[in-house]
Amino acid sequence: MSGTLYGLGVGPGDPELVTRKLVRILRGLPVVVYPAPPEGASFARSVVASLLSPAQTEIAIRVPMTRSIKPAQAVYDRAAQEIAGHLDAGRDVGVLCQGDPFFYGSFIQIHERLAPRYPIKVVPGVSSLMACAAAAGVPLTVRDDTLTVLPATLPEAELEKRLKRVEAAAILKLGRHFRKVRRVLARLGLEMRSRYVEHASLGSEKALRLDEVEPATVPYFSMILVGGARR
Amino acid sequence: MSGTLYGLGVGPGDPELVTRKLVRILRGLPVVVYPAPPEGASFARSVVASLLSPAQTEIAIRVPMTRSIKPAQAVYDRAAQEIAGHLDAGRDVGVLCQGDPFFYGSFIQIHERLAPRYPIKVVPGVSSLMACAAAAGVPLTVRDDTLTVLPATLPEAELEKRLKRVEAAAILKLGRHFRKVRRVLARLGLEMRSRYVEHASLGSEKALRLDEVEPATVPYFSMILVGGARR
Repeated sequence: MSGTLYGLGVGPGDPELVTRKLVRILRGLPVVVYPAPPEGASFARSVVASLLSPAQTEIAIRVPMTRSIKPAQAVYDRAAQEIAGHLDAGRDVGVLCQGDPFFYGSFIQIHERLAPRYPIKVVPGVSSLMACAAAAGVPLTVRDDTLTVLPATLPEAELEKRLKRVEAAAILKLGRHFRKVRRVLARLGLEMRSRYVEHASLGSEKALRLDEVEPATVPYFSMILVGGARR
Repeated sequence: MSGTLYGLGVGPGDPELVTRKLVRILRGLPVVVYPAPPEGASFARSVVASLLSPAQTEIAIRVPMTRSIKPAQAVYDRAAQEIAGHLDAGRDVGVLCQGDPFFYGSFIQIHERLAPRYPIKVVPGVSSLMACAAAAGVPLTVRDDTLTVLPATLPEAELEKRLKRVEAAAILKLGRHFRKVRRVLARLGLEMRSRYVEHASLGSEKALRLDEVEPATVPYFSMILVGGARR
């Protein structure tokens, strides 16, 4: 009997925003996997550090930050193989994910590689979408709003095309794309309906108007929320 | 000193999918408010029933199910007044919301009425979006996907216009609108990319292909997820 692979959403960052289900399942797992930068600590692991025990085997997936996706793909290939070894030996494995595992999560890389071969369960987490709306103090969607969620990594013309005629919108993964997104929002007349949020749910949380943001300091995990038109 | 108004996301329905933060705050509140049908039990209350104590004052907001929004508006007006009375007396008040308070939540009705006058804090919850993706076993968004979230209550032509050229999509609040949505998805060639989910995270959870769904039985709290085009 093979083990079960768990995708575990740890939420936006505040250790109190994990679910009771995550706490129960994580404590019972022999093997815990998490994404991490090439050097240094894993953010996902830091959120649940107080729940881990020395008896658990830990595997850090250290994803290289390169423009080419090939090196990252090779890292995920090797991680999937290592995880498969534990599953074949009958050990359950949990993969920690910031936010929710199936919402732009790196867990999807592991899921794609192992889904046909092993039983998989996903424990949903509080998403950055909802944490950013809470931080900004404004509703994400009201009544019959359509919400458009898109990554700031898209080309400028494509962003503009997709943001034209939106009601509510959330633009994720800002980082070095902030200036480009602000230009697009200005051209579409959406600046005044927009709020910027970084580090939602953490002590360093900030919610600002776009003209208050210093573009050079915008982290990857930040977001712009555009409020629905009809408010 | 007035009390603080809390919007409390209780998640999709599984009592284990509440956050630790919700548990801590809910236990300390003197007044707990929740939406409820005209008669019978509140779903949001049922999720956290084991956390409530007889010492807490409970207020059910019984929202009439009418086509006209006027009777519901009057009920929210009265509820906001009653809540304001507690806040004025220095008592903190929590409003329970299925899913997340700022994502199509009925909390927004109270927020709109009291936001300028009282301190408000929102505790984000696990959204039905993420719970339905977990139930269906398919990612909501991958890589650079754009996700479009829209309510099934929109007119058929409007739905079709907004679903044309989508990548990933989530269509909420299905209920009696299921047949209309399925027609639109069929016309756009999106049926095979779509999965239907009802009662996500509960014992009665179901994830089906559209042709397996019996339209007459579709509950309001159900959803169709359309997978990204590029998978």
